[in-house]
Order: sequence, then structure tokens, then C-alpha cells
Amino acid sequence: MVTFNDIAADLERQAIELPSWAFGNSGTRFKVFGTPGTPRTPEEKIADAAQVNRYTGLAPKVAIHIPWDAVDDYAALRSYANDLGVELGTVNSNTFQDDAYKFGSLTSSDPATRRKAVDHHLECIDVMHRTGSQDLKIWLADGTNYPGQGDIRSRQDRLHESLQEIYDGLGDDQRLVLEYKFFEPAFYHTDVPDWGTSYAHVSALGPKALTCLDTGHHAPGTNIEFIVAQLLRLGKLGSFDFNSRFYADDDLIVGSADPFQLFRILFEVVRGGGYDVGSPVAFMLDQCHNIEDKIVGQLRSVLNVQEMTARALLVDRDALLAAQNDNDVLGANGILMDAFYTDVRPHLAAWRESRGLPADPIAAFKASGYQERIVAERAGGVQAGWGA
Amino acid sequence: MVTFNDIAADLERQAIELPSWAFGNSGTRFKVFGTPGTPRTPEEKIADAAQVNRYTGLAPKVAIHIPWDAVDDYAALRSYANDLGVELGTVNSNTFQDDAYKFGSLTSSDPATRRKAVDHHLECIDVMHRTGSQDLKIWLADGTNYPGQGDIRSRQDRLHESLQEIYDGLGDDQRLVLEYKFFEPAFYHTDVPDWGTSYAHVSALGPKALTCLDTGHHAPGTNIEFIVAQLLRLGKLGSFDFNSRFYADDDLIVGSADPFQLFRILFEVVRGGGYDVGSPVAFMLDQCHNIEDKIVGQLRSVLNVQEMTARALLVDRDALLAAQNDNDVLGANGILMDAFYTDVRPHLAAWRESRGLPADPIAAFKASGYQERIVAERAGGVQAGWGA
Amino acid sequence: MVTFNDIAADLERQAIELPSWAFGNSGTRFKVFGTPGTPRTPEEKIADAAQVNRYTGLAPKVAIHIPWDAVDDYAALRSYANDLGVELGTVNSNTFQDDAYKFGSLTSSDPATRRKAVDHHLECIDVMHRTGSQDLKIWLADGTNYPGQGDIRSRQDRLHESLQEIYDGLGDDQRLVLEYKFFEPAFYHTDVPDWGTSYAHVSALGPKALTCLDTGHHAPGTNIEFIVAQLLRLGKLGSFDFNSRFYADDDLIVGSADPFQLFRILFEVVRGGGYDVGSPVAFMLDQCHNIEDKIVGQLRSVLNVQEMTARALLVDRDALLAAQNDNDVLGANGILMDAFYTDVRPHLAAWRESRGLPADPIAAFKASGYQERIVAERAGGVQAGWGA
Amino acid sequence: MVTFNDIAADLERQAIELPSWAFGNSGTRFKVFGTPGTPRTPEEKIADAAQVNRYTGLAPKVAIHIPWDAVDDYAALRSYANDLGVELGTVNSNTFQDDAYKFGSLTSSDPATRRKAVDHHLECIDVMHRTGSQDLKIWLADGTNYPGQGDIRSRQDRLHESLQEIYDGLGDDQRLVLEYKFFEPAFYHTDVPDWGTSYAHVSALGPKALTCLDTGHHAPGTNIEFIVAQLLRLGKLGSFDFNSRFYADDDLIVGSADPFQLFRILFEVVRGGGYDVGSPVAFMLDQCHNIEDKIVGQLRSVLNVQEMTARALLVDRDALLAAQNDNDVLGANGILMDAFYTDVRPHLAAWRESRGLPADPIAAFKASGYQERIVAERAGGVQAGWGA
Repeated sequence: MVTFNDIAADLERQAIELPSWAFGNSGTRFKVFGTPGTPRTPEEKIADAAQVNRYTGLAPKVAIHIPWDAVDDYAALRSYANDLGVELGTVNSNTFQDDAYKFGSLTSSDPATRRKAVDHHLECIDVMHRTGSQDLKIWLADGTNYPGQGDIRSRQDRLHESLQEIYDGLGDDQRLVLEYKFFEPAFYHTDVPDWGTSYAHVSALGPKALTCLDTGHHAPGTNIEFIVAQLLRLGKLGSFDFNSRFYADDDLIVGSADPFQLFRILFEVVRGGGYDVGSPVAFMLDQCHNIEDKIVGQLRSVLNVQEMTARALLVDRDALLAAQNDNDVLGANGILMDAFYTDVRPHLAAWRESRGLPADPIAAFKASGYQERIVAERAGGVQAGWGA
Repeated sequence: MVTFNDIAADLERQAIELPSWAFGNSGTRFKVFGTPGTPRTPEEKIADAAQVNRYTGLAPKVAIHIPWDAVDDYAALRSYANDLGVELGTVNSNTFQDDAYKFGSLTSSDPATRRKAVDHHLECIDVMHRTGSQDLKIWLADGTNYPGQGDIRSRQDRLHESLQEIYDGLGDDQRLVLEYKFFEPAFYHTDVPDWGTSYAHVSALGPKALTCLDTGHHAPGTNIEFIVAQLLRLGKLGSFDFNSRFYADDDLIVGSADPFQLFRILFEVVRGGGYDVGSPVAFMLDQCHNIEDKIVGQLRSVLNVQEMTARALLVDRDALLAAQNDNDVLGANGILMDAFYTDVRPHLAAWRESRGLPADPIAAFKASGYQERIVAERAGGVQAGWGA
Repeated sequence: MVTFNDIAADLERQAIELPSWAFGNSGTRFKVFGTPGTPRTPEEKIADAAQVNRYTGLAPKVAIHIPWDAVDDYAALRSYANDLGVELGTVNSNTFQDDAYKFGSLTSSDPATRRKAVDHHLECIDVMHRTGSQDLKIWLADGTNYPGQGDIRSRQDRLHESLQEIYDGLGDDQRLVLEYKFFEPAFYHTDVPDWGTSYAHVSALGPKALTCLDTGHHAPGTNIEFIVAQLLRLGKLGSFDFNSRFYADDDLIVGSADPFQLFRILFEVVRGGGYDVGSPVAFMLDQCHNIEDKIVGQLRSVLNVQEMTARALLVDRDALLAAQNDNDVLGANGILMDAFYTDVRPHLAAWRESRGLPADPIAAFKASGYQERIVAERAGGVQAGWGA
Repeated sequence: MVTFNDIAADLERQAIELPSWAFGNSGTRFKVFGTPGTPRTPEEKIADAAQVNRYTGLAPKVAIHIPWDAVDDYAALRSYANDLGVELGTVNSNTFQDDAYKFGSLTSSDPATRRKAVDHHLECIDVMHRTGSQDLKIWLADGTNYPGQGDIRSRQDRLHESLQEIYDGLGDDQRLVLEYKFFEPAFYHTDVPDWGTSYAHVSALGPKALTCLDTGHHAPGTNIEFIVAQLLRLGKLGSFDFNSRFYADDDLIVGSADPFQLFRILFEVVRGGGYDVGSPVAFMLDQCHNIEDKIVGQLRSVLNVQEMTARALLVDRDALLAAQNDNDVLGANGILMDAFYTDVRPHLAAWRESRGLPADPIAAFKASGYQERIVAERAGGVQAGWGA
């Protein structure tokens, strides 16, 4: 049996990167609702993100998105973040909002468009040098809406060429993580639609290229923990974008739609060494808070990941392996479920307090007056959003 | 055997209503791309829609959306349309873009919000009197994103009350058509998610309330033609919103994703009397042309419906029934497929010419210079879109 | 706040009907694996089912399937069950295994086949009189595999006629529950594919006809708790067939694939009065234990339902309603999640002991030697299965 | 523009392998219906398959399944087939019906079970030497039904070891094709669930290992033609198992559920060189004829593939590429659709007649009296099936 005591030390190294854009407005094609207090600048987003880390100790990094978070002086932005106790993390590129990319970017049949898109990534690498970021994350929105619109095969070939040039521009300690997505914004074919495609590309590039798994980017019914196990086995799982979904890429709070799935995913992470000391796997959130409070939403999210990681760590793996080898189907399943149904919340509250953190981070944040302050202070200006 | 000659007269009564918003810009939450020539006003949208009718004879009505197409003088808008050879059709309400509706409209737990939403529909009915429209179409975006956020049951009760008040405001010759949608913009629960819910509500309201079936609003794998057959049988199929999808509510050109499905749907329409003289079923498009030409996209759409209707009419129903009653599975299927694989395009070209229409409407439109003209004329101003 | 104490009495009235066929062999089209100790007769199935009730107090009834459980003397079967502490429950008809039903039964275009299928149901009603069963459950496998194979519309009309005749044969205290299923064994269209179709039919029949909701019979992504809430609202939820699924109609142990979904379903049951004293809703399992132990599988299943019912009852509904009315999205969601994450297992163990039941029913059953006994005793004969 | 004349010669090399098991009985877990005339022996299956080739010239090979088609003398079976004008093709292994494989075969944690499963494949290779078969097809049913039941990761490692030993046993001209499948018969995780997993394994094995793509084995909404294009690009598309589906692995007649999808798939085959002279891609059917005539079903199937291949070859690829490079979305799509909507049936009838084949193979077969003859002759004995 594994007790909470056995896992308390392991919980120390949990670190979840927050997406700066989660603090800005987001929505659907039908409407983006604004909210009082929404940040207007990269600095205000970072300030909000720092609150999440302050109350949980779980979120030491903030991912940025270029150009949404483009600034003149990245060194200054980095200092600003450090002063608030956080670091700048993954740099996310954007090749889906410029008019030039209407029909594709890294896969475009137009050499000038590809050039522009590759150059954007090289600039992102430049930003990374200044922010101290390790990862360049490429979520490629390229695809087509109608059969025949594009040539699927040659787009793959051009994608490889574009990625190769970006890869060659990476510094020694930098990595490229290639995200895949089932669909949206393209509605017929997507150029990196599944883990197999990402894997084929990053394998062709080299050791600094890895796959990014966004938990909301799969076909209905996909067994995501299988992909986690497989990519870890193949040495190509670079990072997670956590969120949850009922239907498509809903980008809801991680763990809110199917908590048991999150548990199974985290169990395979632990099982496959992805949570080990020195693991190359980076854990990030990628979510939208369309109608709910954004800072509290992020607090809830990192706590969900922490609670579920604790449950995954509590699985008695020796007993599980024994039951598996006995083909004791219900026994093995029962061992897994026992950890899932364990209420780790009181243990985690105590664990937090013992480390100088509030037992209830959400309550502590709410009591702090921060939200009221930003609502008052952030009057005027243009609230940050996706610029869609 | 049924020949094209046998069905030529039936094709005369085909009428497909166009959505004014298909001529404006649309996109995804990631980006709305603009295009030269896009209308800036309701009048310009109607002018573009009239082109589709001019070259095909298939699109005598234009559906409008309030407030996207709100004008001061609806009588003038009606005259404007009539002068271009088209009529104003279905009035679509909008309760998803006002800040008041962030958490619901007709289902809201706040009486003032419900009041506002009901009043909006009563105003739409008022518009209908002035535009001469028959149908008030309600697509209700209401729903929730997180389990527990709302009380599913009482939202249904409030929905009934709201609909009843709207229904009671209808004129004698007016109808309410209630659309259902699987998900989006809500990501956990939607208040009118399926045909069963729409059917239960319109049945409770009375004979002037009917269901609107949008072909893109179903769960993966749903047999849509079954729903068509069932709603026709129950006397509650009011209208179609045609479009097509590979994944979610992609809103692609009707017939572009699964032409055989469109054929099966239209076959059940014909089989169930929905295409008969005097049928209560209204045929509309509801599509987005995010990246392709909008007017040509609408031309392609109505031609797709016409071609597929022709194929559906060509099914030898006597032979089919005989094969069905013989349990001749492959024989019956073969009779259906024979009609589907028939190339009706040359027949329809000749049919069009015999009626003073161009054999190739798309080529004729392209040759007309209209597109170049609007690109030149519609400089400046704000292109119409969804206002999201 | 709701405590376990507050709900302890409510748990008393939980009753879950077991399917006799869960104790027989089952499998896929690829293989049905046998297991030592599998029952060979209806009596042996009932004996196994009685074990589940003995150790949990949760399963006082056993549903039977005709002809799988057909016997000469139903009065004797009833006595046999009663002597073991259980009653005979729902009678399930079977119109999918006789060669006559290859192309349909209640919907068949052949009057003789329909006659045979209706008569089978009238015989089931006769059985019900002798077994004291309340419900006739109709899961209709009718459908077609190829477009055109059957006439969807007239099949519906014939279905109505067939059901009407069966309905008219019901005794005063008997009910007909009409199950729906998305697909399988038919692969193109199914004659009762969704709750809307079942609802339309049972509404047309009368008050003794209700819908049966099998939790594994929906399209991917369907919000099942919405359907629960809707059917309760419409007064037409007759019964549940519990099981769980990852893909299709997998018939896995209830709560094993998505425990949070089961929680949400049971919460809507409680919310909508379906668990109230005198509620018309019957709770049944309908599962397959293809590779796991069958009796332990059923024990696990009823305990899963009990644990999740306890969690659903623990929801602080007053606080929830207040948060909902405040549009406090995260607050409301948090109240629901708090109940879900509560570990009710120790409370239930104590509750069981206080009522003379074993704290750990599965351990108690395993210690009883029953399984070893039936393995030894049930040598020879033909193990019960589906007879496919 | 491409005319039928341009493609007539290309159609000569079309060859579609038939599955012997399509001529035997099949069904669902609910029922396997028998049919008069169903073969009782491998020889009778081959005789039926030879009929398909006789009337179409499209099906020169018959795939066999061990042990369903196991015989004492494979040389004799081969001669028998040759005398009927066909050859024996792919050898399909079976590790899902022996009791030993209840919890896995090549992935089993039990060394003896793995040994048995590997040995079975080595025996299949031995059969291949005697039948002159090129391909060993492995569809691996291994998987688990409950989370925790098996260790996903070590099962992959064991799978690799097992496959390596089988691979090492291949003759110089033999290949291993590894099929993937989304789910069924396993309902939680499948050990080879997607193309990425198959690709990772066959890449690790070597050049004689390739992927088999079964068109019915994907998650809902998957863009299959993308996978075709990708695997061709990666040099790892070994073979197709054609069939069609509306829901799961329905195994319906190829082209019957979504003809446009079949067209898109075959277009990517042509585009990617998979139909070129000397292409390594093998085309097979893998279908079930649960309720329809089996021989006519196979005739219909190969004709569907032929008709759709003709349409795919008719695409004007020069014009398409030009439109794609112009980003003419509707123009490019229109070029594709033009080929799809072309009625190739009269051309193919003439083509067949010019080659001494009947214009209407199905009518010719029906007129031949073969079906009546086998119904009369095949009285008694046990009809072939899957032995589930």
C-alpha cells in the first residue's frame, strides 16, 4: 500500500506552466465576452499568473504567445516576471492570424508565405534566447476546408522542409515541440492531425524535436493514455497542453469533463517515467475561460492536476503488477480505482500548510482583494484577447 | 424506371432560401478573414443573394438575422429585395451576443434577462409582419460549460414558458421553428440539443410550432435521414438548414462533405411528402464561407441541392418497394445507388436553358463582371460579419 | 452542507435489478470465452444473482429474458427465487435470434412475421402474470444494414401498430418500457435509435408505456444526464439499463469507464425525483462480463451504483441553487465536484455493518467458498449464453 | 481533361484480393444467420471466390485465414485454386479464438502464451511458403477491457519482441503487414489502435514490415485519405482492407456507406503512386455479408472499387494542381467533384465487353445458375463461419 506520506516528497517537484492567454478574453466564433479586470498587457497577464503560483506553489512559469505577448524589450519582461516569482516559459508561435496565412503557412504552396512563416519561427527562437525559454511550441493551424483544395502529400513534404529549417535554427538547449490537433480551424484536413504525424516529423528532425500532446485534440473515443505511454516509450513526449473537453477542442478546465481520464493519463505519465526527476516532459495548461473567472479558473486547474497527480502516485504499482500478471481483471482494476477514489484533498491541504502555503488557495486568493483591485485599476484600455 | 423527363416538372417548385449572413465574413474563434467585395449593409447582402437567384432560379428568398440585418425601415428593405427579384424570408433571432445573455436567455434564471429575450422575439415577430416573413427561427445558444453551472431541469421549464409567450405572439400565418444543436457555443450542456427536445417543446406549443433541422447539428454518426422521416411522420418538420460537416458544426457547403448523405436526406424528404406541392417544409441554407468565394459558394450550394433533389426524384420507388418487400437487400440498395450515380448535370443544364437560365450558372456569373464590380465599389466601410 | 448521516436513510430504498444473462457467458462476434462455474440453467443464474443480494442487500430482483430463461413452470421458478430471497423482475423479449426476424420483427413488412413477433410479446405478458413482473422491456434490434434496404417511414408506422397491440395486452399493473439504441446489430438504420423516437412512441401509446434508458446506447458525446432530466420532466422515464462504455455498446461494468458521468446521471435522477419514494423509475443493470468474474463483476456493479448514489445525494442542493442563480460558474461546479470527490466508501462500509451486511461484500463473497463450490458442482452440461 | 480512354489501360492492372471468410457466415454477437448454399470447406469458399473473378476479372487472389482455412495439403489447395483461375493470397493469422489468448497473445505477460502465439505465426509463414503467398497479415485483437487490467507500456515492449521474432522468420520475398484497429474486441485499450502505433512498430522491424489500413478501423471523423497519403509518403503502406462503416467496424460492402470517402481514398492512392505499376500496395476486401447474398455482395464490392478507381483516375490532376496553387478553393474542389459525379458505369460496361467480360457481371452471375446449384449441392455439413 502506498500512503500519502510516501508521495509527499514527489509532489514537491510538480510544476505546471500557465498560458498567458488564459488570463485574456476568449470565446467562440459566436461571441467573446469581456470581464472586468481582464489584463490589457503582457505584464498584467504575467501579474495574474504570478498570483496562481503565489497561492499554490505549482505554477512557476508563464508561457507566452507571439505576437499576442510581443514586447520591445524581452529582457525587461523577463525581469518583471522574475520579480513576481515566475519565469517565462514556452514560446508559442502564431501562423494563423495574418492574412498571408489564409491558405496555409509552413505548408503553403507559395514560397514567400513559407518564408514568412519560417522567419516568424526563427524570430520566436530569438525571443527564446532573450526570455530564457527552453521550448518553441508549434501548433500548426494549417489545413483545408474542402476536398481537393490542397495537395495533402506535397503539403507534408513542404512541412518537413519548413520544420527542418526551424529545427536547424534551435540553440543547443532549445527544443521544438510539435503539437497535433484533430481539426479546427480547418474542417476537411489538418496538416498535423494526429500523434503519428507529429511523431513521424519529429523523428525525422532529430533529438531536439518532440511531440506536444494537447488533451483536447483527439477524435472522439481516443484512448489518450495509450498515446502517452507510447510516446514515452518512443522517447518523444515533449510536453502536455492540459485542458478538457466534452465534444471538440472545448478548452475547458483540466479535469472538469472527465476526471477519471485525467487520472489515467497521469498514471501513465508516472508509470512511464514522465514524472521522474529529470524527465523531459513539460506540463502546461492550454485553456479558455470564456465565461468563468480566469484567475480562479487557473487556480482550480493547477489544483486539479496536483490532486490527480497525487492519486496517480498513490496507485500501489507492485500490487497492480501482480494482479495484472495473474490476469485478475477486477482485482487489477480495483487497485487503480482505489487510488482514484481516495480523497486526497485534506492531505494536500495539510501538505500545503506545512510548506507555508494556504490550505485553501482559492479561498486565500479570494480573500486577498487582488481581484477587486484589478477590476478597479484596469479601467480603460483594450482587454487582451486572441485578436481573432 | 424514372427518367429525367418524369421529374422535370417537379424541379420547377424547388426554392431554397439563402442566409444573408453567408455573404458577410465569417470564421473561427481563431480568425475571421476578410475578402474584397464583402457587403457592408443588409442591402448589399440582399443584392448578392439576388445574383444567386438570377443565375439559378432556385433562391427566391433571403433569410435575415436580427440584429445583424436590423434596419429602420423594413418596408423599404422589402421593396429593395422585391425590386431585385427576391423576397425576405425567415427572420432569425439572436440571443447569444448581448452581454446580458452570457449565462442564458430564454432559459435564464434571471427574470429580467428572460423578459429581454422574449421581447426580442416579439420584436422579431413585428419585423416579420413588415417583411412578410412566415417563419421565426429560434436557434437557442443557451447552455452551460461546466457540470453544475446551471439546473438543467428548471432551464427546460423556463424555456417552455418563454417559448409559450413567443408562440402566443405569432400571427395567424406565422410559424415558430425551433432549431436544435448538439453543442457550441456551450460545451457541457445545450438546452435544445437534439430533435427529441425540439419535438417535445413544439408539440407542447401547438400547430404553428415546428422543428428546424440543421444538417450540421448532430452527434457523430447520427442517421439524419431517419430524423427527417420521423419528423415528417409526426407532422413536425418545419424547415431545413442545409450545410455540411466533417467534424462539428463546420458549416461547409451543402453536399461537400458527404454527398451520399445529402442524397439520402432528400430521398426521405421526397418519400415522406416533404417536397410535395403544399408541403410545409421550408428549405434554407445556413453556411459559412470562411475562405472561399461567397457568391460562388452559394451558387454551388443551391446547385448541389438541385442536383441531389433530381437524383432523389429519379429513384424508382415502385421497384424499390418491391425489392424491399422481397427482402432483396442488395437489389433494393442497388436501385437507390443507381439514382445516386446517375449524372444529372447535363440534364439539368438543358433543363435550365429551356427555362431561360444559363446552362452553367457559375460560369455565367463569373462572366458577368459582378464580382469585379463589387470589389471596386465596396471600398471603405465595415464589412458585414457576425459581430462576435 | 449535507452529511452522510443525512442520506443514510435514503440509501435504504436502493434496489437494483440484476440481469440473469450477466451470469451466463457473453462475448463479441470474435469469441465467447467460457468460464468454470458458469450457470447452465435459469435456476443457477438466479442462485448466483441471489448471492449478490445476500452480500449487499442491493439487488432484490432478477430480470429474465425469454426464451433464454424460458421454463415450463414459472410459478416454480418464482418460488425458487423467493426461497433465495429475490424476486423475478422485468421480462425481456427477444425478437432478434429467430431466423424469421432476419429482416425485422415488429417492423417487418411481412404480416406473418409481425404476427409472430407480437405474439411473442403477448406470451411474455403471460409470463409476467405468472412471475409477478411489472415491466415488459422491449429492446428492438430491428433495423437495416444498407440504405434502401427498408422503408424507414413505413417501418415506423408498422412499429406503432405492433406496439399498440402489445400495449393493449398489458394488465392493469403492468408497464411496457421501450429501449432505444444508437446502432447494433443493425449498421445503417435502427428503428428505435434515440430517446426522441422512444418518447414519440410511448407518448402515442399511453400512460403505461415508458422509455428505458440504457447508458451505453448513445452517440459519442451525448449528454445522457440531460436526457434523464428531460424524460423525468416529461414523465416518461421508466427504467435504466446501467452499464458503461468507451466506444460503442461495450456493456462494461457500470461506472468503470466514466465514473463522473454516472455521478451526473444519478444526480439528475435525484434532482428530478427519480429516486424519491414511489418513483416509477426502475434501476437495472445490463452488462456483459466477457473476461472477468461474473458474480464479483455484479457485486462491483451494484456497489458502484450505491457509492455514486451516495455521492449524488451528498450534493448540497441549496448551496448549488444559490450559486447557480448567482451565475457563479466555478462555485456551482465546485459544489458538485465536492460531493463527487468525497470518499463515501468508509461510510458505506459502516452503514452496511450497522445493517447486518458485510463491510466488504466482495471480500465476504470470496471468503464464502461459493465460487469454488459452483466450479466443482457445475461440471458438464451446456453453459448458459446468448445462443447467438 | 482526362477521358475514359486515357485511363482504360490503367484499369487493366486492378486486382482486388477476396477474403475467403466473406463467403462463410458472419454476424454480430446477437446472432449469426445462416444462408442456403454457404460453403462448408475452404475449397467451396475458393470456388465461390473464383466466380467473382470469372465475371469481373478483378479478383485474381483469395486471402485465407488460419485456422479457419487450415488444410492438410496446402499444395493441393493451391492447385485447386489455380485450376479455378485464382491464386491463394495473404495469409491471416488468428490469435483471438483460442482460450489461451483470453488476456492477450503477442503481448501476453505469460511467456508460454507469447511462445504459442509467435509459433502460430511461424506456422503461418510455413503455410505461405506452400501457398506462394507474399503477405502475412497480423490483425492483433489484443487489448484490455478495464483500466488497470494490463500494463499498456510493457505490452508494447513485448509486442515488439514478438513481432521481431516473426519478422525474422519471414522469407526473402515475404512481408509482414500489421493492421491497426480502433477498438473491438477489446473495449478499453487495444494494443495496435492506430496507424501511428503500427508505423512505429513496422519502422522498428525493417523494410519487409508494412502497415495494413482497414478502412473501418478508425475513430469517428478520422480523415482516412490523409493517412493513406502519409503512409505512402513514409513508404509504409503495405495493404488495404476495404469495407465500409457507419458506426464502428461494421464491415459493410466497400463504398456503400460513404462513396465519396472511398473516392477520396482512391484518389490519394493514385496521387501517391499506390496504383502505379510495381506499387507495393495490395488491395484486399475484408467484409461481412451478415444478411445479404455473399457472392453478389463480393461482386458488388469489387465493382464498387473499380468504378471508384476509374473516377479517381479521371481527376484532371494538372488542372487540379493549378487551381490548388492559385488558392482557388471552389475551383479545385470542383475539379475533384467533376470526376466523382461522372457516371463511369456505361464506360466500364463497354470496357468489360471489349475484354470478353460480361457488361453486367452481377446479372451474368445471376443468370448462370451457380447460386441455385450450390444451394442444392451444399446440403448437410456445417456451414463455414468464424467459429466464435
